[in-house]
Amino acid sequence: MRITAIADIVVPISSAIANAYIDFSQMTASVVAIHTDVVRDGKPVVGFGFNSNGRYAPQGLLRERFIPRLKNAKAEDIVDDRGILDPFKCWAAMMKNEKPGGHGERSVAVGVLDMALWDAVAKAEGVPLWRLLADRYNGGKADDTAWVYAAGGYYYPGKDLSALQDEMKSYRDRGYRVVKMKIGGEPLKDDLKRIEAVLKIVGDGQNLCVDVNGRFDIKTAIEYGNAIRPYNLYWYEEVGDPDRNTCSVDRVDRIAAAEDTALVLGEIGALEIAFARGLQAICFYRVALCRYRQRIDQGMLRRDHHVGAT
Amino acid sequence: MRITAIADIVVPISSAIANAYIDFSQMTASVVAIHTDVVRDGKPVVGFGFNSNGRYAPQGLLRERFIPRLKNAKAEDIVDDRGILDPFKCWAAMMKNEKPGGHGERSVAVGVLDMALWDAVAKAEGVPLWRLLADRYNGGKADDTAWVYAAGGYYYPGKDLSALQDEMKSYRDRGYRVVKMKIGGEPLKDDLKRIEAVLKIVGDGQNLCVDVNGRFDIKTAIEYGNAIRPYNLYWYEEVGDPDRNTCSVDRVDRIAAAEDTALVLGEIGALEIAFARGLQAICFYRVALCRYRQRIDQGMLRRDHHVGAT
Repeated sequence: MRITAIADIVVPISSAIANAYIDFSQMTASVVAIHTDVVRDGKPVVGFGFNSNGRYAPQGLLRERFIPRLKNAKAEDIVDDRGILDPFKCWAAMMKNEKPGGHGERSVAVGVLDMALWDAVAKAEGVPLWRLLADRYNGGKADDTAWVYAAGGYYYPGKDLSALQDEMKSYRDRGYRVVKMKIGGEPLKDDLKRIEAVLKIVGDGQNLCVDVNGRFDIKTAIEYGNAIRPYNLYWYEEVGDPDRNTCSVDRVDRIAAAEDTALVLGEIGALEIAFARGLQAICFYRVALCRYRQRIDQGMLRRDHHVGAT
Repeated sequence: MRITAIADIVVPISSAIANAYIDFSQMTASVVAIHTDVVRDGKPVVGFGFNSNGRYAPQGLLRERFIPRLKNAKAEDIVDDRGILDPFKCWAAMMKNEKPGGHGERSVAVGVLDMALWDAVAKAEGVPLWRLLADRYNGGKADDTAWVYAAGGYYYPGKDLSALQDEMKSYRDRGYRVVKMKIGGEPLKDDLKRIEAVLKIVGDGQNLCVDVNGRFDIKTAIEYGNAIRPYNLYWYEEVGDPDRNTCSVDRVDRIAAAEDTALVLGEIGALEIAFARGLQAICFYRVALCRYRQRIDQGMLRRDHHVGAT
């Protein structure tokens, strides 16, 4: 199995939405296609990958470093014993001669290609990716169901409580029990009105998550945490900047100790140190899995840790 | 003072050198020029900036996000009360709508422009940058001298001990008392021979620093640390990957406790959390200052902390 071509495009995904930290007026994402010489059902296998909303298309990094390294790798260096592309060996080829430390933009670029590589491998093997992963790494066992929720509730110009409720109702109409909304972009008293408006739609607080997107310092995090405690919400996400002291282990410990609501963090950092320390303090951890690949030590996880991909 | 144009180029700086973690066979750097409408000595003021060896030219990031944001900022939003460009306001304009967390490549790109902005401001004010900084932030006081050292001693194909000695001798001939060499790229016994060869040139161990460039795990860091203790070297730099648990505070504490040699770290990370925690454990801290601008809380520093820019 050989890579025959790699194409990438930048897709504009700009919109008027905002969370507490950034707006999405100039947002873009990269989509890549990794073409291979394997043919299935009469067509060449092509793996696709894209990056999530929020960090912009990493086209420069893809074209300057990561696509060339993958294309220039010797074919025999990036396949497994059976000659199938090996995403771990591809990862090593892409990260060759990259300094340690400072994982950020480049983990987005590598992640896009990583996703496409796994897609290509699953297609080459003729199975869905979940089946391939279960067979390779979990003795064939896979969950029959996956817990999902609807993430929305962004700030939007002119969006009033009624529009927010309509949005949440549309998620519930599509079958989602749990929804998520942004907070921290307006004063606390206004955010509380937004939360109460959504609770009128979803009923129980256990059907609602709130997401700060890294905006708060510790004082504000605890102030908001105290204010939302009576609602018994499902989780309280990304309260501070993970790279600043706000979310270092002693601070997260303090916030966790002050709250009954489950804390969630892990999406916006890209660090094993923050990951390991976060796990000591919290029980939910949303992980941008492509950033942590080859880094998650299962020994770090407790039984009450819930690790999900974003 | 207005920005009239921003130009950038990619400069190949590839060479056959290697440290313990990466080689420099494809290395590049970005150079930017920020043109302004201020005229001094009959010529428009132009500020120049470039990035250090090791992380590649961030041209994609510069052109996709940071140069456009700086050019598109309203002129009145990025100047101080006197109408002079304000690098802090420029920084805010460049980082607008960037998610928190994951500082890595983008801090290199922003740093290149930041350097050029300070250069332009000093030129517009008609003073050297050290004088401008001393006047603005240190009551006019500036050091008369600066401690410097010669950083080299890379691995190089066919480079034997004699060539390493010649290199170090050339630094000493140019007046440097302290030199630095790479270690960790060869087995310990060979690195010890390299260190001993250099000590023959520089005499005292206090004239030699060694740099691991993030290669070691904690076991190897302590093993090497024990082996170099008898040489009484000036410092032992960047022993592990700062984003992995290797250099988290408890690990650095353990390494520091095992060593008499001063530890140095801070160059390859870009995190306040690692910075703050590193300071608890060590006494030298080399800092990529552009990455920490607006982030260094002087309260974090002790009198025995030596903070330098790289």
